[in-house]
Amino acid sequence: MTKRVAIIGAGPSGLAALRAFESARQKGAEIPEIVCFEKQDDWGGLWNYTWRTGLDEHGEPVHGSMYRFLWSNGPKECLEFADYSFEEHFGRPIPSYPPRAVLYDYITGRISKGGLRDYIRFRCPVRGVEWKSDLDKFRVTVEDLTKSHVYSELFDDVIVASGHFSVPNVPDFPGFQSFPGRILHAHDFRDANEFAGKDVLLVGSSYSAEDIGTQCYKYGAKSVTFSYRSRPMGFEWPEGFVEHPLLQKVEGKTAYFSDGATRDVDAIVLCTGYRHHFPFLPDDLRLQTNNRLYPLGLYKGVCWIANPRLFYLGMQDQYYTFNMFDAQAWYARDVIMGRITLPTSEAMTEDTLLWRRKEEAAANPYEEIDFQTEYVRDLIERTDYPAFDLDHVADAFKEWKHDKAEGILTYRDRSYVSALTGKRAPVHHTVWMEALDDSLEAFLKSGEPEG
Amino acid sequence: MTKRVAIIGAGPSGLAALRAFESARQKGAEIPEIVCFEKQDDWGGLWNYTWRTGLDEHGEPVHGSMYRFLWSNGPKECLEFADYSFEEHFGRPIPSYPPRAVLYDYITGRISKGGLRDYIRFRCPVRGVEWKSDLDKFRVTVEDLTKSHVYSELFDDVIVASGHFSVPNVPDFPGFQSFPGRILHAHDFRDANEFAGKDVLLVGSSYSAEDIGTQCYKYGAKSVTFSYRSRPMGFEWPEGFVEHPLLQKVEGKTAYFSDGATRDVDAIVLCTGYRHHFPFLPDDLRLQTNNRLYPLGLYKGVCWIANPRLFYLGMQDQYYTFNMFDAQAWYARDVIMGRITLPTSEAMTEDTLLWRRKEEAAANPYEEIDFQTEYVRDLIERTDYPAFDLDHVADAFKEWKHDKAEGILTYRDRSYVSALTGKRAPVHHTVWMEALDDSLEAFLKSGEPEG
Repeated sequence: MTKRVAIIGAGPSGLAALRAFESARQKGAEIPEIVCFEKQDDWGGLWNYTWRTGLDEHGEPVHGSMYRFLWSNGPKECLEFADYSFEEHFGRPIPSYPPRAVLYDYITGRISKGGLRDYIRFRCPVRGVEWKSDLDKFRVTVEDLTKSHVYSELFDDVIVASGHFSVPNVPDFPGFQSFPGRILHAHDFRDANEFAGKDVLLVGSSYSAEDIGTQCYKYGAKSVTFSYRSRPMGFEWPEGFVEHPLLQKVEGKTAYFSDGATRDVDAIVLCTGYRHHFPFLPDDLRLQTNNRLYPLGLYKGVCWIANPRLFYLGMQDQYYTFNMFDAQAWYARDVIMGRITLPTSEAMTEDTLLWRRKEEAAANPYEEIDFQTEYVRDLIERTDYPAFDLDHVADAFKEWKHDKAEGILTYRDRSYVSALTGKRAPVHHTVWMEALDDSLEAFLKSGEPEG
Repeated sequence: MTKRVAIIGAGPSGLAALRAFESARQKGAEIPEIVCFEKQDDWGGLWNYTWRTGLDEHGEPVHGSMYRFLWSNGPKECLEFADYSFEEHFGRPIPSYPPRAVLYDYITGRISKGGLRDYIRFRCPVRGVEWKSDLDKFRVTVEDLTKSHVYSELFDDVIVASGHFSVPNVPDFPGFQSFPGRILHAHDFRDANEFAGKDVLLVGSSYSAEDIGTQCYKYGAKSVTFSYRSRPMGFEWPEGFVEHPLLQKVEGKTAYFSDGATRDVDAIVLCTGYRHHFPFLPDDLRLQTNNRLYPLGLYKGVCWIANPRLFYLGMQDQYYTFNMFDAQAWYARDVIMGRITLPTSEAMTEDTLLWRRKEEAAANPYEEIDFQTEYVRDLIERTDYPAFDLDHVADAFKEWKHDKAEGILTYRDRSYVSALTGKRAPVHHTVWMEALDDSLEAFLKSGEPEG
């Protein structure tokens, strides 16, 4: 009898899984029956922009964490699918830092060629997954929101691809209960225009803080104050931007920092990261980890050692993204299809501990990039996912790191060489700080700069 | 063997259920074993104010829909517990429209006298309820968020008291994807100060719209535009407030209404109501209804006819609140304890259809008040919940309706007579429009007006 595989989520990771099976099918293999359950009404995961925050029209937590005017914060050359170049999709080379709509077009363009949409049940959040040892199967319970109908089905394998950047980590600080203005998590940030003319406090010092900070500058915030826990970002910020150590409290609209500084602010954005959150999984199937390059419990970063019929995609902290999800999806597919035989539970655990030691030895971002490069290489060598020059991509990541350190407001004006085509991307027609229109049309039109 | 009863939620309805059982125990009855599962870290439900919006520190949807500076929008004389007067709680008469903190104190004060807190498992959202016919019990699956542990237990009866004002109904309108400002549902409204000096659009014409509108006026919004679907609220609004029929679209920051009017706005608040939302219930146990005075499927508005071991409290549209939840809780308790025997399923359905016809015959708010008064009376007559003068309370509701129509900004300065004490409430020391401090201390201090 044909195996049944459930994929939870139709974002970049879930779509990578669909693509992996499709690729095997196209090469003549008999593939399992696949059902992909997606909470949203469209595919693309986080890349599927919505104005909504909080709960959506069905009362479900809004998945989207992206905002208007979001542009890629890393070069597209570092995330390019090995089996589908940007040039193939757009018919010509495009600049290195595309806005959200362009990346969405690229991700979904690859997948829309087959009939893969038919595998997906939209508006179907998974409510529970249970291992039924008597049946040797998983029971997956789902709500069809459109029909307001809850049902269960049995599956041989389950792939969790629900992401880990949609459930915010939201700390409390003294005085928040009576702060006279908006307090939000970066997850709910949608439009920098709202903060034009305002004094904004951003708590955090990672990607969300640096990008929302630059957004606020680009769209006219009066000032931005950052607050960091361990160390400042240290970029050369424009006038009116300042970094202070951790927020201690607010009194009225005055924020107090641990260096004794104070600042009156109109709004507070918590750029305090996201949580691995799987309310549909029982204890024995649930990954519990902070955001790091090598969470334990997952052989090859993918197979749930405690029950290797369960797989997780994309649960790592990420330099690599789309191409890493592919590498993981191809690996999970081959385990499910019996092309790869897993070692004993002990051997799997031992392997993860080796990787964990390497992760812990990485002393700076450059070594972290090397670590994740080796991780992706190890996966790709084990499947028929197209090989590509990973050292080249690692170098591009390091170039990006360096470019960003040189100019947080200008790094998106740089261009990089594709490992697939060997070509350097063209420079965009408008410098990023002046590119206020983030539509696909504005980005792709050639010719004169905006404005 | 002692029966086990699960109560889902420790807000006003769930606490009424605890109080009902406690009352029976104090009178010498042997009561079932009770477990109350509460998602939040404290009791009080909606009355438990939080600055948080969207998802909370555990990634759970925030339950709270209340905002800073929220004052009761109905006289306390209409919601007074029959077994615990405001005067008993506060030691003296207090004005008729208390702010949130004062009502919170009253609700939780009644319940904190016994050891009832021990029945409650905080930070424990229910993930699933399943009827196990082979065991003749419900299996309730719960996540203990503090321990990140999912577990199941069996119960003979389940009382759903999770409320229906915490999951917003959030419609979409053309142009929302590119509106350059904040769009939020009333559920996420926290502090009117955020909208000082702004032009605000409120979509909706019920309690949320009227109250958030007056809040915006009180705390300095530049203008408020209301948009209604069926009919305007028709209050005498202050200058700068205007009502238009339904919003058609927004373009940039310009809102277009179906009467041809347009208006530039900085922020949009969707006062579009709430959903009955029970993601933890399967189809056969799930109440599906809009917000109305008599949802079908519930005998006496409480017992789930399709499986009368399941109970719902407080699922009606509400004139009556705390005292109605009490009446329902006492009734559910007596069914569970075998003091009331339910008729056949057919008879129960027939009874609900009779009530439904009466509900449909109510032609205006005054008749709706009479309808719900009769409903509460019918319940109270069937248990030992203390009788009180319901006709008096119905009259107070009508007086309130009238006072509100006379002055949406001044009705909270009126006072009413308690059905329990027979006394008219004192007039507050400060008129509501000038009472900017909504703390319990400011409200209870006697003497000079604020400011």
